[in-house]
Amino acid sequence: MKERKFSVIGKPLPKIDAMAKCAGETLYADDLFFSRMIYAKLLRSPHPHARLRSISTERAAGLDGVYAVITGKDLPEKFGIMPSTQDEEALAVEKVRYVGDPVAAVAASSETLAEKALELIDVDYEVLKSVLSIEEALTEVDNRIHSWNRYANVQKAVSLEFGDMEKGFEGADHIYEDTFFFQGNTHLPMEQYCTIAFSGPDGKLSVWSSTQTPHYLHRTLSKVLGLPMSRIRVVATPVGGGFGGKSDPFSHELSVAKLSMTTGRPVKITLTREESFYVHRGRHPVKMWIKTGVKNDGTLQAMHFRSFLDGGGYSSYGLASVYYTGALQTVTYKLPAYKFEGARVFTNKPPCGPKRGHGTPQPRFAVEVQLDEIAEKLGIDPIDLRLKQLVEPNSETVNGLRISTTGLRECIEKVAAKAEWKKKFRQLPFGRGIGFAASAYISGAGLPIYWNEMPQSGVQIKLDRGGGITIFCGSTDIGQGSDSILAFAVAEEFGVDPADVRVVTGDTDLTPVDLGSYSSRVTVMTGNATIQACGKLKEMLYQVAGEVLEVPSDDLEMAEGQVRSISYPARGISFVECVQKAEAKFGTLGATGSYSPPKHPANYKGSGVGPTTAYSFSTSIVELACDGETGDIKIDKVWIAHDCGRAFNPLLVEGQTEGSVYMALGEVLMEEQVFRKSGLHKIPSMLEYKSPTTLETPEIETILVETNDPEGPFGAKEAGQGPLLPVIPAVANAVYDAVGVRIHEIPITGDKILRALEGRLKPVSVPSFEFPPPVKWQPGKGAEVPQKS
Amino acid sequence: MKERKFSVIGKPLPKIDAMAKCAGETLYADDLFFSRMIYAKLLRSPHPHARLRSISTERAAGLDGVYAVITGKDLPEKFGIMPSTQDEEALAVEKVRYVGDPVAAVAASSETLAEKALELIDVDYEVLKSVLSIEEALTEVDNRIHSWNRYANVQKAVSLEFGDMEKGFEGADHIYEDTFFFQGNTHLPMEQYCTIAFSGPDGKLSVWSSTQTPHYLHRTLSKVLGLPMSRIRVVATPVGGGFGGKSDPFSHELSVAKLSMTTGRPVKITLTREESFYVHRGRHPVKMWIKTGVKNDGTLQAMHFRSFLDGGGYSSYGLASVYYTGALQTVTYKLPAYKFEGARVFTNKPPCGPKRGHGTPQPRFAVEVQLDEIAEKLGIDPIDLRLKQLVEPNSETVNGLRISTTGLRECIEKVAAKAEWKKKFRQLPFGRGIGFAASAYISGAGLPIYWNEMPQSGVQIKLDRGGGITIFCGSTDIGQGSDSILAFAVAEEFGVDPADVRVVTGDTDLTPVDLGSYSSRVTVMTGNATIQACGKLKEMLYQVAGEVLEVPSDDLEMAEGQVRSISYPARGISFVECVQKAEAKFGTLGATGSYSPPKHPANYKGSGVGPTTAYSFSTSIVELACDGETGDIKIDKVWIAHDCGRAFNPLLVEGQTEGSVYMALGEVLMEEQVFRKSGLHKIPSMLEYKSPTTLETPEIETILVETNDPEGPFGAKEAGQGPLLPVIPAVANAVYDAVGVRIHEIPITGDKILRALEGRLKPVSVPSFEFPPPVKWQPGKGAEVPQKS
Repeated sequence: MKERKFSVIGKPLPKIDAMAKCAGETLYADDLFFSRMIYAKLLRSPHPHARLRSISTERAAGLDGVYAVITGKDLPEKFGIMPSTQDEEALAVEKVRYVGDPVAAVAASSETLAEKALELIDVDYEVLKSVLSIEEALTEVDNRIHSWNRYANVQKAVSLEFGDMEKGFEGADHIYEDTFFFQGNTHLPMEQYCTIAFSGPDGKLSVWSSTQTPHYLHRTLSKVLGLPMSRIRVVATPVGGGFGGKSDPFSHELSVAKLSMTTGRPVKITLTREESFYVHRGRHPVKMWIKTGVKNDGTLQAMHFRSFLDGGGYSSYGLASVYYTGALQTVTYKLPAYKFEGARVFTNKPPCGPKRGHGTPQPRFAVEVQLDEIAEKLGIDPIDLRLKQLVEPNSETVNGLRISTTGLRECIEKVAAKAEWKKKFRQLPFGRGIGFAASAYISGAGLPIYWNEMPQSGVQIKLDRGGGITIFCGSTDIGQGSDSILAFAVAEEFGVDPADVRVVTGDTDLTPVDLGSYSSRVTVMTGNATIQACGKLKEMLYQVAGEVLEVPSDDLEMAEGQVRSISYPARGISFVECVQKAEAKFGTLGATGSYSPPKHPANYKGSGVGPTTAYSFSTSIVELACDGETGDIKIDKVWIAHDCGRAFNPLLVEGQTEGSVYMALGEVLMEEQVFRKSGLHKIPSMLEYKSPTTLETPEIETILVETNDPEGPFGAKEAGQGPLLPVIPAVANAVYDAVGVRIHEIPITGDKILRALEGRLKPVSVPSFEFPPPVKWQPGKGAEVPQKS
Repeated sequence: MKERKFSVIGKPLPKIDAMAKCAGETLYADDLFFSRMIYAKLLRSPHPHARLRSISTERAAGLDGVYAVITGKDLPEKFGIMPSTQDEEALAVEKVRYVGDPVAAVAASSETLAEKALELIDVDYEVLKSVLSIEEALTEVDNRIHSWNRYANVQKAVSLEFGDMEKGFEGADHIYEDTFFFQGNTHLPMEQYCTIAFSGPDGKLSVWSSTQTPHYLHRTLSKVLGLPMSRIRVVATPVGGGFGGKSDPFSHELSVAKLSMTTGRPVKITLTREESFYVHRGRHPVKMWIKTGVKNDGTLQAMHFRSFLDGGGYSSYGLASVYYTGALQTVTYKLPAYKFEGARVFTNKPPCGPKRGHGTPQPRFAVEVQLDEIAEKLGIDPIDLRLKQLVEPNSETVNGLRISTTGLRECIEKVAAKAEWKKKFRQLPFGRGIGFAASAYISGAGLPIYWNEMPQSGVQIKLDRGGGITIFCGSTDIGQGSDSILAFAVAEEFGVDPADVRVVTGDTDLTPVDLGSYSSRVTVMTGNATIQACGKLKEMLYQVAGEVLEVPSDDLEMAEGQVRSISYPARGISFVECVQKAEAKFGTLGATGSYSPPKHPANYKGSGVGPTTAYSFSTSIVELACDGETGDIKIDKVWIAHDCGRAFNPLLVEGQTEGSVYMALGEVLMEEQVFRKSGLHKIPSMLEYKSPTTLETPEIETILVETNDPEGPFGAKEAGQGPLLPVIPAVANAVYDAVGVRIHEIPITGDKILRALEGRLKPVSVPSFEFPPPVKWQPGKGAEVPQKS
């Protein structure tokens, strides 16, 4: 088949909202003001774990300028992002489970007054013993944070086995066991959380919120407030950074909605930066144990992987997070046998959730560092060790994941060549090092978070007789450029300028459901839905153009604002004229499109987080200097290659890739969410938390490897998350190359390097825990579920 | 066929925006504020007719706080609502044609400063002789307001002949000739004109305006500004009354758009009440001559009708207005022969355009008063005279208009019974009188104003899996309740509560094209488009429900939030569940619908203003007191019967009917646009112009006569304009019944009655004018166009 010629796709066009953002015209949630608007604040627990004896709001409610005070009894309905873990309350009803857990909400004429009112709320807490670590969570058998959890504070424990583990380890020449720890960290978007709710005089509720998932917020508001979804409108305002942190429905969103219903006024809440550190739902701290069997030549025989996730006080996306820590180990290198055991525990800390890479950067760190060590032990170049056993295109992994296209080999070869790997590896002087790692990531999940039987994305398109095209879609632009992606797809399909496309997204009243901006799903899912909708309209336009031009439909194309003959391009009519003629013939022109990924054969529980339309692949080489005296690391350069399928827009893919590198460097070198024994965050401010600035950001060389994925829109796969993954282990491997110590803990800080150099860095301890007997799954045979004893 | 049972249609439900309006939450254009917004003012000509020698804007532009000053040279492209009369300029280029004609526009940091800047613009006018009356317009052969008009200041002269006029008059026992004058008046909505424009940093222009016709504004902005329609968004803000006065694209709309493009800032203009009196586009002053032949028994034999419209300085909808003064005389009573001659002239006064009833209240006044006189002369009760010759259902008039349903007879009989006509007519004491009149009106025009080959209305619908339904439509709610009509239609079709329906209208980016809120077209046109779109979706829902319920599709209905078996109503699933299942089966659920009226056989030029889906019929009886000493009139009671087809919502129809009566009383008793020799409006303020207040508004008894029109949505016809028509002649006829004088001039003021009582009221003079030879049209034979000599 002849390669399609694109006029928009693949071009480095600016984002459609670029000018508005540069000019300061974009209105974020906190930029919105409504007449008669009042302001809310939440009273948050100072205790990590306590029972609520009583709350007295009379004094606060009596303050002049206070419009309403609500507590847990006003919003008792539990909620949660995942159907089986509905364990949150908008405002705590019986217990608080972390410092920052909200117990009351106030609406007042100003933020200052609302804060003053908070001080007048009297809460009688019965302080309970708190559970602050994974180990405590597993051993505090009778001190349960949630009454419903299975054993001690284990929210979920899972065990899955694929292939013949026994045979795998038996056939191995060497078996390596290692432990790792990846500390938690947060998303740190520039825009804090902000929501405005207005319950109108007609009884309908409108909520404007900085959210990645307006549809999930929509249904949660309905559940908690007891209003039909048809009476609620959620508008996702432009998101000033999300990275997963705005994917849950939040207490503050539900509280302002209730406060507006109580007062009849628009109610706004903007969380402080300190609150944002507590509210975040960021990266889980994960302890990992990994046992890998290899042949003398480095061929992988079997891997047994165990993860313990410190979930914090509530479930959030935790169920998916557990599975994610086990799902993608198989996607880069051929692995004939694989066993995964994972557990997520509750602790009295802010709940963790999805952050860029959702559950996969932690195991990828462990796997890639261990492989680097194995290669060294076997005396093989770590890149060569990988190259000999890469997953193949159109193959299926032992855990049933279908790999369509892969540019992994090209990614490896390109970074190696650009970085002059062969010249540098193990040949740089002490204090300078180079490290490599590879990874894979999903392009959206195969199953939505709830209900199998619904499209993951839907769009509706309207053609105007003036030539304007409007696309309506529930997706949200969180800065990643998904609005632009929609415009580019529509422009490509109709052969018009992206400026002729108006994109309306993230408004549950106006737009069809899209599940939201997470899991790197938008480009692929809404892209495919968009192409489907365009196709329905193009059929009509081609019919009309064919009649007018006397050209068979299959010889027609849309390009340069024309509908024209492919064979005789001079024979054409303008797009606008064609639309008008089609409207005359068919009536008002509009169409819907939707997309659900193909059904996948991996049918075991939890398989939904693995299957996707396609896997992206990333490789990174990091060159750095590590000061042997201070342990200080200075990254000199990062080479990053990313197989994004077709680069929808290379400028955007590069931006996503560089953003991923930047975020990975923050995680690997400095960022961590750390808590005192009192449950208080140690560093809840941007000054102390630290995150790389431009000064700490090295030169990044981005190499886009374009495969043409058959399931992706125009061949696209994901770009927003995957490139974060290899950078973290590549830094760890480069540190070893520089100073000869292996750091198995993220972040890799100077003091850890010094302690390691001095032999004082203790190995990571991983708790012992009796996992349930594994579900065994074989391709074609299905799952063998162990009998409950 | 069994009569369909309705659950929403026919119910007196409140308007969907009622609560928001009552609570003051509705945001009209002037309620909108944008950051960095600046304010515009227009410099208007103080001369009725002058040539522009030069305009100097330097001093104004130099004033601190002035952002831009523009003149005609910045917007030279001519425009006009009708394709063949593009005679307006946003700002005058060579000439000004009425006092108030804009010559320059200023944008400044405040309205006050903008006004100050206007004073600093120096305009050098060459004052020309002005043309201020119909007579002057016809005789000032060489003093042409527009260079392009055909003869003197005649914009358009038309002559049409139907049936055998010669035979008609020959067969008549009596021939009556009369002259009439209907003075011009204005719409006087509570909300003045207001527009905000913002040319964003991405080069796209958004315009928020209080307009009845966002689509026409859209294309006019494109033409005048030279921007593609795809880069312009027009949002019709909630209109605080239009009545036809906000149907044109206006200078102020184009000027603020240009000012925003010049300054990069949002620019707002709100016209003062005085400006609104000049800008208005209201009722044409019309002089009429009517010659009618009747048999001794009152049977109409032939009618020759002539109208002269005083158009003011520009064409506006004038071309349609001329035809409208001649089109509907045939629609109430059988008329075997009819000739119409009409001319619209330019004068140096503010241009006239469409006002409620557009061109038909004036001739209806003449016809109904003359019939009253004929009945008296023949000694026949005027109601009996009419009853014997009413048009029949499913008939065609001599000028080719198709009458489907008519409730005219019932309307007559019901008002007569309610008002106790037989007991009162000619039997009330001197000073008290009763009068009757009847009328007909269109339900939207058969042809759009431009382009035959397009739907007149289009809608797009989206179903949300939460049960919410959104309908997108380009129509505008001008207070008449069209948004509610859409919600009711959707709710009826899907068997849900109107509160589950979100209505998005009048936004060229979001909504399919609807031609606008004029010609009483919205209920019928968008109603039909809505039913079509709903039908497409219902088909899918019925298919799914049929499978689930095991019920054949033709035994299914949607009602009470259920999709259920008609035979066994207990067998059903909820609408929400059905939507979810249909979404799983078919993908994202949305559909378009559109409507074009059936093609009509009357194919002569100008026939487009007559054909419609259906005619509404109205009758009115007015009982009043007229003081023989002062001429003062006090209306005691108005009975109004209106055949609206099916009453979509009786509360809304009654509201429209009562509003029509109120407006008719203003027109017949007090309101007039009158100008000094200088071209200045005599009374451009609400204090002096006068309009009935609640104190002058009598008891109104509204009788809805429901026919079930086959072409109407759920059987509906129009309601918004028709009921105005009979009230005016009914008052005139009641005045005669009270004090014995015939007043042939509107408004009927006390001084005219006194002059008439004293024999000093001069008959209306109608100018002589040589009309072109008539186009003769016969049903089935087509038009016979006279050869040009």
